[in-house]
Amino acid sequence: MERIPILKMGKFLLVTIQVDLYDRLALTLEEDLIQMVHKTGARGVLIDISALSIVDSFMGKIIGNIAAMSSILDAETVVVGMQPAVAITLIELGLPLSGVHTALNVERGMALLAARMPEETDSEDVDDD
Amino acid sequence: MERIPILKMGKFLLVTIQVDLYDRLALTLEEDLIQMVHKTGARGVLIDISALSIVDSFMGKIIGNIAAMSSILDAETVVVGMQPAVAITLIELGLPLSGVHTALNVERGMALLAARMPEETDSEDVDDD
Repeated sequence: MERIPILKMGKFLLVTIQVDLYDRLALTLEEDLIQMVHKTGARGVLIDISALSIVDSFMGKIIGNIAAMSSILDAETVVVGMQPAVAITLIELGLPLSGVHTALNVERGMALLAARMPEETDSEDVDDD
Repeated sequence: MERIPILKMGKFLLVTIQVDLYDRLALTLEEDLIQMVHKTGARGVLIDISALSIVDSFMGKIIGNIAAMSSILDAETVVVGMQPAVAITLIELGLPLSGVHTALNVERGMALLAARMPEETDSEDVDDD
């Protein structure tokens, strides 16, 4: 796999991580994501890790990087779908994911992001083909 | 990888296919997806294939299967993010994905699904696709 797809959903971007991130894939993801935030003016980034049963410190670092970079571009990061074992591992590794919001699933993550930007109440236009 | 995550987004389910489907993974996906449609009462299934640069007839068959199964459970299937080369290949393989809607990206796919079910009415529609 060359790159992880980034889906635009309204004001937010959604990334589903399904494979272990190796160095180059992670760097490509960081770069793509920041470019997308810049290009689309997204206000939030949702990272779904429900497919991951383990994480390591590298993965934790990448998520932290993404959150920090997005934050500079005024987008908040929410990690969703974390498995219980992953939460345990993160804490044991000493990676509390500071600066990153978490939510149980994508729906709650989107609700969290939406709640944090109440003033931006532009309704989505449904374009009919 | 053991299974592809299925994300619930409101009335719809979203699946991002990032890896080549081999036999067992495809069967697991079919089964998981149908279970999720049943459990959540989802009205639509979005399959994002933007990460796939090639498809083969097996992949086409799996998408067709998912659409047919979902249809029986009253959920419509939309394939989104198809790369141009993939569209060419599908037609050349003689797999026009009948019974499957397509849209350029997830946003348009969701708009398409939303437009096809403007209100949750209990009246039974006879769809003749």
